Amino acid sequence: MKKFINDPNDVVAEALAGLAAAHPELRVDPAERYVARSDAPHAGKVALVSGGGSGHEPLHGGFVGAGMLDAACPGEVFTSPVPDQILAATKAVDGGAGVVHVVKNYTGDVMNFKMAAELAADEGVTVETVLVDDDIAVQDSTWTAGRRGTGATLLVEKIAGALAEEGGKLGEVAAIGREVNAASASFAYALTAGTTPAAGRPGFDLPDDEIEVGVGIHGEPGRRREKLRPARELVRSALDAILEAKPIDSGDRVIVLVNGLGGTPLIELYLVYGEVATVLAERGVEISRRLVGNYVTSLDMAGLSITVTRVTDEMLRLFDAPVRTPGLRWGA
Amino acid sequence: MKKFINDPNDVVAEALAGLAAAHPELRVDPAERYVARSDAPHAGKVALVSGGGSGHEPLHGGFVGAGMLDAACPGEVFTSPVPDQILAATKAVDGGAGVVHVVKNYTGDVMNFKMAAELAADEGVTVETVLVDDDIAVQDSTWTAGRRGTGATLLVEKIAGALAEEGGKLGEVAAIGREVNAASASFAYALTAGTTPAAGRPGFDLPDDEIEVGVGIHGEPGRRREKLRPARELVRSALDAILEAKPIDSGDRVIVLVNGLGGTPLIELYLVYGEVATVLAERGVEISRRLVGNYVTSLDMAGLSITVTRVTDEMLRLFDAPVRTPGLRWGA
Repeated sequence: MKKFINDPNDVVAEALAGLAAAHPELRVDPAERYVARSDAPHAGKVALVSGGGSGHEPLHGGFVGAGMLDAACPGEVFTSPVPDQILAATKAVDGGAGVVHVVKNYTGDVMNFKMAAELAADEGVTVETVLVDDDIAVQDSTWTAGRRGTGATLLVEKIAGALAEEGGKLGEVAAIGREVNAASASFAYALTAGTTPAAGRPGFDLPDDEIEVGVGIHGEPGRRREKLRPARELVRSALDAILEAKPIDSGDRVIVLVNGLGGTPLIELYLVYGEVATVLAERGVEISRRLVGNYVTSLDMAGLSITVTRVTDEMLRLFDAPVRTPGLRWGA
Repeated sequence: MKKFINDPNDVVAEALAGLAAAHPELRVDPAERYVARSDAPHAGKVALVSGGGSGHEPLHGGFVGAGMLDAACPGEVFTSPVPDQILAATKAVDGGAGVVHVVKNYTGDVMNFKMAAELAADEGVTVETVLVDDDIAVQDSTWTAGRRGTGATLLVEKIAGALAEEGGKLGEVAAIGREVNAASASFAYALTAGTTPAAGRPGFDLPDDEIEVGVGIHGEPGRRREKLRPARELVRSALDAILEAKPIDSGDRVIVLVNGLGGTPLIELYLVYGEVATVLAERGVEISRRLVGNYVTSLDMAGLSITVTRVTDEMLRLFDAPVRTPGLRWGA
């Protein structure tokens, strides 16, 4: 294993120390293991808290800031955060108007966020949960009952975060988060596996000419393995699957996310975005906004995911609202 | 070779098509091969033009936009843009106040930008050139006489671009660009080589436990190969080399760039930034601003570079000015 690390056991703690040093506008609590806005809590504002295993950076810590998350709880690499950690973050950012938990649909995450929400309720903090399960590649997977949560998490956090920032109430913020998730579908390909610091070797092996079709962000198996094909064919297959799974039709407007999984360079992501734009234009689907980059990653995995979210005027307005986080920033 | 591409010969053209589709605020000329601000030229504004081989994305096309470059000329992968291409871009964005060429110090780039500047002069466009040669690892290298231009290019383009945006004159914009370069030093490590689409295999081989110390952004050899060491030792060695090469002392303020070379995940870059912050604090050097991410890459190379730029109040003010490009955005 070749990585820029010290002791493999210290990677998450040391990366958090680096995040804290780099971003004075964030407050990192090394003992309770959460990242929060320095200016939280905001009295009367609904707070957003997310979290999950580390190794998906900038998700989630890199999306803490004005207009997006109030706090994030990073677990160990590919490991759910624990209930105490989530509870501490929830209480730290609660401004009295309730807290929305944005939870990717993995069994451990769901269980631990649920427990934290119950503990928070015991202490008088109302929590609403938005479950993200946008990955339409497989129905159940290694660590999931039901569909996995992947790229759409970013859009849920951005759009619900914007509504919270402008004063949306708890039920409204949770509702739009759920709407964004319901309107989203994602599909991923892996060329290589990521290597966790603890394991020291790739999570799976792929022959030199094969790809994993429908891979998960922890390297979970997808639908099948197949020979590598040209990008334009892979894009067409992914969009066929996405448009079959969600009712996205001619005349609809969408946000597209072409997301690198950590080891894929931007030149390939832009090439792929060009193919996505071509196919969606053929289908009469209008791309109103798009993001191209590494947002929801899987360590150093060479791979990418495509997320398509059918949007309303209100979602677009909230997507365009100012955001100021380490991983996503505009208008501020 | 596993990449998300179609024909290896079409990668640059197709990635540019994707960039154009993703960013309506940019104008991509597929025939002349340049990327320009859609709203260029601006009458009376000094224009900034850069360029170089492709494979370093977001550099340079991703840094075209308000507050940074007016145009960029991407060559083929790791290949200089040609004089005609640079000339076309220069004329396209000239607003009558002259054009600054930001040129990384590689023999082909220097020669072709020089020829383009002479051709532009023949057509009445005054060009000033800012040469970037911040990589202090080696004196001469595979494609360079003198030091190579790497991470500091981003800071030159940001700071000089901001001065141009607010009305700086040709001589002033070029002067601050040169000042930023002179105040900058970079040093890089590679864990693996990048693979060009044309070659189809890694540019060099490294044993499983070795790194290239002082690698260039095209995979050029550095100072030596050595066994992989913990990140904290690599950071200390790099900063020793940087602070020995440039007069950066206790009490100085700096901008730090911890830059991934394409295949290194953000969790490692933040861990490394934490080590950089520790070492510079020991030396009494104040980090006034920092960037952590993939900005000046080498395809899918696993590696990173550290750039340190000693700054003045004026440089910080210009660094903080609004910028709106695909690869760097704040305040707008």
